Amino acid sequence: MIPDLSHLTIAVVGATGAVGAEFLKIVEQRHPQLHNLKLLASSRTAGTKLTVNGQEFTVEETTADSFQGVDIAFISASTEASRHWAPMAVAAGAVVIDDSSAFRMQEDVPLVVPEVNGADVTWHQGIIAIPNCSTTPLVMVAHPIHRVSPIRRIIADTYQSVSGAGGAAVQELKEQTTALLKGQPVTPRHQPKQIGFNVIPQIDSFLDNGYTREEQKMIDESRKIMHAPDIRVSATCVRVPVMVSHSAGVHLELERAMGINEIRALLMDMPGVTVLDDTGTGDYPMPWDVAGEDDVFVGRIRKDASDLNGIALWVVSDNLRKGAALNSIQIAEELVDRECLKPGSTPKPRFSFG
Amino acid sequence: MIPDLSHLTIAVVGATGAVGAEFLKIVEQRHPQLHNLKLLASSRTAGTKLTVNGQEFTVEETTADSFQGVDIAFISASTEASRHWAPMAVAAGAVVIDDSSAFRMQEDVPLVVPEVNGADVTWHQGIIAIPNCSTTPLVMVAHPIHRVSPIRRIIADTYQSVSGAGGAAVQELKEQTTALLKGQPVTPRHQPKQIGFNVIPQIDSFLDNGYTREEQKMIDESRKIMHAPDIRVSATCVRVPVMVSHSAGVHLELERAMGINEIRALLMDMPGVTVLDDTGTGDYPMPWDVAGEDDVFVGRIRKDASDLNGIALWVVSDNLRKGAALNSIQIAEELVDRECLKPGSTPKPRFSFG
Repeated sequence: MIPDLSHLTIAVVGATGAVGAEFLKIVEQRHPQLHNLKLLASSRTAGTKLTVNGQEFTVEETTADSFQGVDIAFISASTEASRHWAPMAVAAGAVVIDDSSAFRMQEDVPLVVPEVNGADVTWHQGIIAIPNCSTTPLVMVAHPIHRVSPIRRIIADTYQSVSGAGGAAVQELKEQTTALLKGQPVTPRHQPKQIGFNVIPQIDSFLDNGYTREEQKMIDESRKIMHAPDIRVSATCVRVPVMVSHSAGVHLELERAMGINEIRALLMDMPGVTVLDDTGTGDYPMPWDVAGEDDVFVGRIRKDASDLNGIALWVVSDNLRKGAALNSIQIAEELVDRECLKPGSTPKPRFSFG
Repeated sequence: MIPDLSHLTIAVVGATGAVGAEFLKIVEQRHPQLHNLKLLASSRTAGTKLTVNGQEFTVEETTADSFQGVDIAFISASTEASRHWAPMAVAAGAVVIDDSSAFRMQEDVPLVVPEVNGADVTWHQGIIAIPNCSTTPLVMVAHPIHRVSPIRRIIADTYQSVSGAGGAAVQELKEQTTALLKGQPVTPRHQPKQIGFNVIPQIDSFLDNGYTREEQKMIDESRKIMHAPDIRVSATCVRVPVMVSHSAGVHLELERAMGINEIRALLMDMPGVTVLDDTGTGDYPMPWDVAGEDDVFVGRIRKDASDLNGIALWVVSDNLRKGAALNSIQIAEELVDRECLKPGSTPKPRFSFG
């Protein structure tokens, strides 16, 4: 049963963005009784009227006063916006559920995927972070396996949709594709390079170690969420000309070998995971089909041919839903369920994340 | 210097296909003096007129008599066509350079990427196979490293263009994309599933081990070409909505650790490989840019964060050129250069490929 949120006042910073829109859609689906909403955005889109649960809301510009009387503030705008508004929201007494990378690796900030580490919400100090949209599906399939046979190593190469870069990037993909089909040249605006009929092996900026920030997030965040600082992780994050849903080829190296049927059973038992895997009928998840779905989908489950203890998988998830908005709402539900909307009641855990 | 082929009679079976067209383009670029061509195809496209090196040719239907007087027969049609025509061409005295998977793993058939194992042409028995278009770029970057620090393990996840499925699949991608931009539904014809704004984690059919034939080809063929039956290889082969050029995220595990500068130097020295790798300026290869290029391009060269002896790379190559047509012509050049157009002069090698 989904915990009731209707007694709470929930602010949504970034209500007019791609994730904000998905957040409000999920509110209607999971919380039709929720009416105490404050829809916030920058001055650019303030004034927009949005209907949620049959009620019309006017999007207001976010200000220092926006968080008075707010129980939970969901922030999905930019990392800068999160850095700016989250402390103010916490000071006003709200619990912040933050979609940016601003606080994820801070020791006093839980980084939560409820099905994996829901109990971590208990030690929040006002801010709870949600993982990057490429990390969430990875830990959703890795963790149920890790609990049974610890994972030593993860290699993931991603196929990420443009909606991960926001609504404007989706529009850009459509425009570039239209132009290219007419033989016209294109000029990138929201992506670093042309994305129409192309793939870009860069998401976010580069670090000194040659990895991108997006790749480093997958490495750091998956360890923190799974409380497994020793797992060795590598990733290549690639943008593909797909509107919604991120996919990944995932290769796991386990401490002890497991059979495919055992893996399949663990994944089928995992809440929020759907196994779609039948090589006979040609069933496997694909981003076009998974867009709009809540679950993380997994298929192509096989023994990894390069390692006796290895498993290879194909994982697809709607980056706007489980990758962002749905995961946030689930954290709000977890907070209510565990009665820990007030921060500081539980001591921080003793594990650390190298 | 490119060896002269103008004294030879060269038959092209599949002259009207996507790879055949690229083959004839490369003939014009590398062999402007080559005039003794026999352009062959099925009855469906026989009669087509094509101009090569300023001379008009009428495409003939392939028959048992087509190979009389032919020195080299290049076959790129279907696996069935190769199985049918190759033995006849050999019986007629031609050396067959075959683009299909029909003979690649046969012990008496060399599988050749000239820059990697050009000497293997010397022991041909009438047929020389070229690798699958996803294997060739992999061995072009793996082999120069393997020669210095043997590779223990390769994990590659691919981003393969639709032209790998033939010219009709390119047309299908354009048609599907046009329909989807108008909000119209699409029905797959040449791909197993919708490819417009989607990715498909299946190329070719499934084997009992859960891998696709395409993935198994990468595993088996890369070992055979590199004479390294012990390298453990895993791959996930994925079709992406790109017209031309295949990309891959590649993770190599080496016997001894190597520095990035050492790796970079080895790759820069490799004929046929271009290093395009500058995280400062955001330079890395992408399929749109690499289409039409001869070289295999490599970027995103970095220490693999999941293994002390690991290297991660991003590899892109035109699947119709180095992945097929160019590699074939280079094999013909190698045969002339090594004076081994006649089969059987050299004993088969003693290594075997498990």
